[in-house]
Amino acid sequence: MKLKSIGVIRTPFKEQPGTPIQGIYSEEAEGKIELLPEYADGLQDLAGFDRVWLVYWMDRAAKAKLKVTPYRDTQERGIFATRAPSRPNPIGLSCVRVTGISGNVISIRDVDMLDGTPLLDIKPYMPEFDSYPESKAGWFDERRAERTHADGRFSGRVDT
Amino acid sequence: MKLKSIGVIRTPFKEQPGTPIQGIYSEEAEGKIELLPEYADGLQDLAGFDRVWLVYWMDRAAKAKLKVTPYRDTQERGIFATRAPSRPNPIGLSCVRVTGISGNVISIRDVDMLDGTPLLDIKPYMPEFDSYPESKAGWFDERRAERTHADGRFSGRVDT
Repeated sequence: MKLKSIGVIRTPFKEQPGTPIQGIYSEEAEGKIELLPEYADGLQDLAGFDRVWLVYWMDRAAKAKLKVTPYRDTQERGIFATRAPSRPNPIGLSCVRVTGISGNVISIRDVDMLDGTPLLDIKPYMPEFDSYPESKAGWFDERRAERTHADGRFSGRVDT
Repeated sequence: MKLKSIGVIRTPFKEQPGTPIQGIYSEEAEGKIELLPEYADGLQDLAGFDRVWLVYWMDRAAKAKLKVTPYRDTQERGIFATRAPSRPNPIGLSCVRVTGISGNVISIRDVDMLDGTPLLDIKPYMPEFDSYPESKAGWFDERRAERTHADGRFSGRVDT
């Protein structure tokens, strides 16, 4: 199970402290996907989609931990009940808005990843498969902490 | 960027032909996640969530192709505008319902992956970050093909 980078994600965020913890808290921050040119043909027909999932490698995430205190809470939770980056496989998943496609470059908004993050996949956002507005979200629904931007708690390079 | 399997996904589906192409077409098919025991502590607090994202390695997907004819359409589309499995990195993403957690085993419904698929990550489904019911979905919105179960077009082992 070996991954290859298919491109790089460009964002305004150079380090974890101050980076939005999710795209909805980014104040519509703009970014770009620079897809490797050999994959550009795979972007055909993507322009009709409002949003895409980006699957990426969180290359500057802290080592995996099974219990973490998430940004939006005040106590420890199991890592698989959070979206925190210090996961056994540091794979990130974000839904971003597509604002333009030109050759191998995609302009995006609502970015929450660090500049230079290696891209693994782009998948179209399809509400029929992906949208469950009424789904219960456990501890998150209790809204114990209103933090919207990262601090340094999950910083540091992954040991892989 | 090396992945490790954190467990295995058990489903009723042994081969691609006849497997639902997405969980919503599975008629609530039941499955299980057998997480490796050393990761079980990471499941704490997950029980309060209705749904999770499974991130997995599509170990029996066909080789990557940049243009494919998706199950739900009648003409070729760029791979990044589809959810077809023959991607440069064969990473699958499915939203499944959680029906029970016991130790390192999670009971799930709405499964659309092959039995024995290596699991890479579990992320809680959070409507605030993940649900965009009005998002436009390009060619998919035109509903040219109503196929809901796979045939053999993306079968075959990935060359990695």
